[in-house]
This record gives sequence, structure tokens and C-alpha cells, in this order.
Amino acid sequence: MTETMHRVVLARRPQGAPVDEDFRYEDAPMPVPEDGEVLVRVTHMSLDPYMRGRMDDAKSYAKPVELDNTMEGGAVGEVIASNHPKFAVGDHAFGMFGWASHACLPGNQLQKLNPAHGPTTTALGVLGMPGFTGWFGLMEYGKPKAGETLVVAAATGPVGSMVGQMAKQLGLRVVGIAGGADKCKLAKDTFGFDECIDHYAYDDAKALRAALAEACPDGVDIYFENVAGKVLEAVLSLMNVGGRIPLCGMIAWYNAGALGGNMSGAKDNLPKMWRTILINRMHVHGFIISDHFDRYPEFLADAGPRVAQGKIKFIEDVAEGLENAPKAFMNMLNGGNFGKQIVKL
Amino acid sequence: MTETMHRVVLARRPQGAPVDEDFRYEDAPMPVPEDGEVLVRVTHMSLDPYMRGRMDDAKSYAKPVELDNTMEGGAVGEVIASNHPKFAVGDHAFGMFGWASHACLPGNQLQKLNPAHGPTTTALGVLGMPGFTGWFGLMEYGKPKAGETLVVAAATGPVGSMVGQMAKQLGLRVVGIAGGADKCKLAKDTFGFDECIDHYAYDDAKALRAALAEACPDGVDIYFENVAGKVLEAVLSLMNVGGRIPLCGMIAWYNAGALGGNMSGAKDNLPKMWRTILINRMHVHGFIISDHFDRYPEFLADAGPRVAQGKIKFIEDVAEGLENAPKAFMNMLNGGNFGKQIVKL
Repeated sequence: MTETMHRVVLARRPQGAPVDEDFRYEDAPMPVPEDGEVLVRVTHMSLDPYMRGRMDDAKSYAKPVELDNTMEGGAVGEVIASNHPKFAVGDHAFGMFGWASHACLPGNQLQKLNPAHGPTTTALGVLGMPGFTGWFGLMEYGKPKAGETLVVAAATGPVGSMVGQMAKQLGLRVVGIAGGADKCKLAKDTFGFDECIDHYAYDDAKALRAALAEACPDGVDIYFENVAGKVLEAVLSLMNVGGRIPLCGMIAWYNAGALGGNMSGAKDNLPKMWRTILINRMHVHGFIISDHFDRYPEFLADAGPRVAQGKIKFIEDVAEGLENAPKAFMNMLNGGNFGKQIVKL
Repeated sequence: MTETMHRVVLARRPQGAPVDEDFRYEDAPMPVPEDGEVLVRVTHMSLDPYMRGRMDDAKSYAKPVELDNTMEGGAVGEVIASNHPKFAVGDHAFGMFGWASHACLPGNQLQKLNPAHGPTTTALGVLGMPGFTGWFGLMEYGKPKAGETLVVAAATGPVGSMVGQMAKQLGLRVVGIAGGADKCKLAKDTFGFDECIDHYAYDDAKALRAALAEACPDGVDIYFENVAGKVLEAVLSLMNVGGRIPLCGMIAWYNAGALGGNMSGAKDNLPKMWRTILINRMHVHGFIISDHFDRYPEFLADAGPRVAQGKIKFIEDVAEGLENAPKAFMNMLNGGNFGKQIVKL
């Protein structure tokens, strides 16, 4: 076994959008599993927008990554040494292995994968944290009813595509928002969205709103919020009475530094939001999927067969090589990925 | 019977805070009840913050009052003529009689009052729409649990005092916010709040926040929102994980014209709000009490005995004379009232 592993560490806290210098690719000593631990060779790691939040030093729902420590994240890999009775060499497992070629964790923190259930990378996307986030937010807080209209942005990402496909199968009209004509085509042709709007085609929230209004002739009952920014501003005035907003992310604002990011100009948009919530008797629910892992088996039981039967589709965008993870991550924050972003090691 | 009644009409739509010229006190012909209708001589009318919204021409949950029409509102009065089998001359009733000395409505739109149950004015406050608003928002969306901390502003008003007293009886720590030392004393001595903060004593949200933080050592689990503005900004960063915000009003922003009112400076406060909702997994519920009249009997069954037994107290601020209703209304929007604002005719 080699004595050296590779990893990407947080070299510096980003100011706004991350740049190359915020990361450092380096060697590190290969860990040796102690009693109860398992050593894994990572085969694929996940890149997710939430990781941008971990790079900041601000109070949040999880501790920030410390400087010079390995960037955190979920990954799948093959067990190459095990001191835990549940894992044998050759097993495949999911865990929070971070941006690293190898990781050593207590066996009870790993989830064994059954390769017969499909590619192990599904544990990073459609049947992993992103898919579960979409499913849970929709079912628990969206309270979808047939005939209603749902809007979700980042429509071709692993969260948005789960939300859209599930809602469609429950009888809703589903309108996506995505960046670029290719993604819009993907949302409609592959994921079955009724409409998908290319936000690059509209300069401001007002123009985007007009396009959305046309795509949502009966207004919007559920806005699944994972982007905020211009999309939120555009959808706000289209919300119906009794509308629901499950809120799991706000990628448009992740790079806004000290949260000073405006939607449009220097206006305070909070009074308008507050008034919309009041007048339309809306329900806004923030949620963090890690609070709800007790529901994960229910999710797998519902979504697993749909994925296996091809009723819920998924797309992966695979970057090659750990050293390219920072670039792939920065690209994803700019919407440059096409489907679930994965790094193959 | 006199041939003339008196009323206050909306003469002009206010720009910002209402002024005298926005109202007109005038005579009108006495209505004659048709089949099924009841003629009432109003004894007391209610003044409520929501009426400010009806004076604007903006889309809202209810139609605006039309120019030169009687200002809308709830009132109680004595039946002086009846063509409805359920009402006899001398009965007392609650109805949407408006700012008027007399009103003629179909009998099925009136609610007969039993004077044995207490003063008829309780139908305007503690056992009427405001009390019901506080009770419903707290119970349905606040989901109060013993040991938690609740914050409510306008603490001595008919909504806030119901929220605080109910929450206190359910075992919560209750912190009020009110304008002036007299109201704070009232909140603590009469309504039993644990603490009450005088918002006039603090120039900005930051100072108010510090005072609130001291009064809420375990953070805030429920913020019952009826004022917005500086109070909302101050309470936001004190919200606990899983916090709930029942949202029934935003009096601080009612006079903000085209909703351009800022909390502090020209900053956009929406990203901060959205991030707080996400990080703290909060639940924000807008509600309009008129959607929930099916729960009114449940409210009366719960709150009625508490009021009768003196466990829930109420304070009324009674202005004299219909012609003084506009002045009393403007005064109330500025927080000049002391308890539930009523006009005695």
C-alpha cells in the first residue's frame, strides 16, 4: 500500500467567488485504520453548492472547514483495509470522505452500497443527499397536490431534477428554470418538465417574471427554493394564495460575502417579501436535510424503485482527477455543470 | 326615527401616514331595512391596524375601500329595526357596520351578543377579531411548548396581549415589546409578561437587539409578527433553530407607501432573512384571520372562560364620538393608544 495520499485543503477563505488560490492540492500521510475504523480508496466524490457555505467563517448550521484542513464532502469508494466487522476489503461504501484520495473513518459512519442496485455514484446524487433533499422538501413542506403548479430552479441539477420529476409524477404542472438552452432542453426532454425557462435569456427579474408568468398561467403554488436572487424576485409576485416555499439553498447569494447581495439595486426587498407572505398566506420552511435522516429509508423505498425503473432519470457530469476538483467546483457555482457534478478519482 | 345618519368616508388615498384630509365626516340618509335586513344603531366601533391597508389601492387580500365610501370595520350596536326572524329590537349585535352611526345589513351577517357574557365591546377586542388572531396564530403556527421563549410586539394591544397571556399560561417565557414605560409596566403588571422592552428607549435595531438578547437568554423560539420594521430586524438574529414566525401584520410598514420602507438604510435585508430561515430551519406562516372563522367557536370555548375568570385580562382605550374616529385611528397607527382602541358613539 502506498504511504502517501492526496487531498485538497482550504488554503484561504474566499472573498466572494472562490478562486484557485483558495484551495491547495497536496500530499498527506496515508492514515492507518485503528480499531473499528475502515480505510477507503475514494473512487468518486461529490461536489455540492452547500460546500461554499463551509468555506466561510460565519455562523451557520455546520462548522466551517478549518484552514489547511481537507475540504469536506460526501464520496464513494472501495474498502482497502477494515477493522470493523461490517466491512470487508472490496466493499463499496458512501461516507463523508472529503476531497481526498483516501479516508479513514469509524465503520459506523459509513453506509455500505450494494452495486447490484446500480452505479455507486447514485449514492452521491439521485439517491443520495441531493435527491433526498428534493424529495423531502417537496413531500414534507411543498405538500404537492395534483393540478397545482410548481417552479424549481437549477432544474437539471440533482435536487431540481428530483423535485420536478416527483412533482410531475404527482400530477403537477412543473416549470423549471435553468441556465442555457441545452439545460432547458434536457429539463423538458429528459426530465419531463412542462416548461423550462433559460434565465440567461432574461436580463433582469422583470423580464424573467414575464416569461415565468406566461409559463404559469394559473400562478405558482410551490416554489422550491434553492437559488434565491433574481429567480426569487421573479417568482414572488406570481405566488398563489396558500403558496409554499420549501427553502434548502440560495446559491445565487452564496458568494455574496457579508450577505450584502442585493436582488435589484439597493432596495430593501424584505418588506415586499413579508407582505407577499402575509397577503398570500404563504408558508416558508427552511430545512437542512441532515436533520431528517430518519426519513431516508422512506425516501429510498419511494424513489429507489422509480430510479431503477427509469421513471426518475439522472444525469452526471464527471470531472477527472482530484486535482481538478476546485476548478469543477468553481465551474458548478457558476452553473457550468450539466447534471450532478462528480469528480472521478 | 331620525332621517339622517352620520359616517366617515375615505375622501382620499393616503400617501404614507393618513392625515385629516384623507377622511370626511358627513351625513347620509338613514337606510331602511328590506326583507331579511336589520338596522343597527352603532354603540362602539373598532379601530384596527388592518384598516390602513384597505385605504390603499394596491392588490391585497381584501378589496380596498372605495373613495367616498364608508370606511370599513367591525362594530357593535343595538338593533332598532329588524326584518330578520333571529333579531328583535333591543338585541345587541356585532357586524361589519363600518365607521358609521347606523348600518343596515342582512341578519345572517350579524352575530348576536349575549350581554350576560360581559361588555359587548369584548366582541371588538379580546373575544373578537384581534383576540382570535392572537390565539389562532399562536396555537396553529406558533406551536408553543412549555419552556420556550416567545417575543411579541405591540404587547399591550389586543393581539399582543392575547398572545402573551396565552403563551404565559402554556408555560413559555414571554417577552413583550411596547412603546413607552407605561405600556411596559402594563404588559408586566397586568398582562403578566416576564419582560417588556420599551422600543422608544432604543434608537436602532442594534441597540434594541442587545436589550432583547438580555431578556431572552435562551434565544427566541416564537416571534409572533405583527409589527415588522426595527423589531423584526432586532429579533432576527436571536431566533433559535426550529423557530416559528406566525405573521399576521406589519404595522411599521403599513405607511411605507410603495413598500419601499427600509429597515436600516438602503440595505437589502431579504438575503439575511432568507439565510436565517435556512440556517435555523425556521417556519414562517402568513395568515389572515378571516380564512379561519371555522375555528372561532374553538377559540371562544378556550378563551371565553379565561376572560370570564379574569385569567386573560383586557384593556380598552375608548375615544368619544364618531367624528373623532380618524384622529383616534391616526393616533393608534403611531402607537398612541393604550389597549384596544374603540370609538364610543
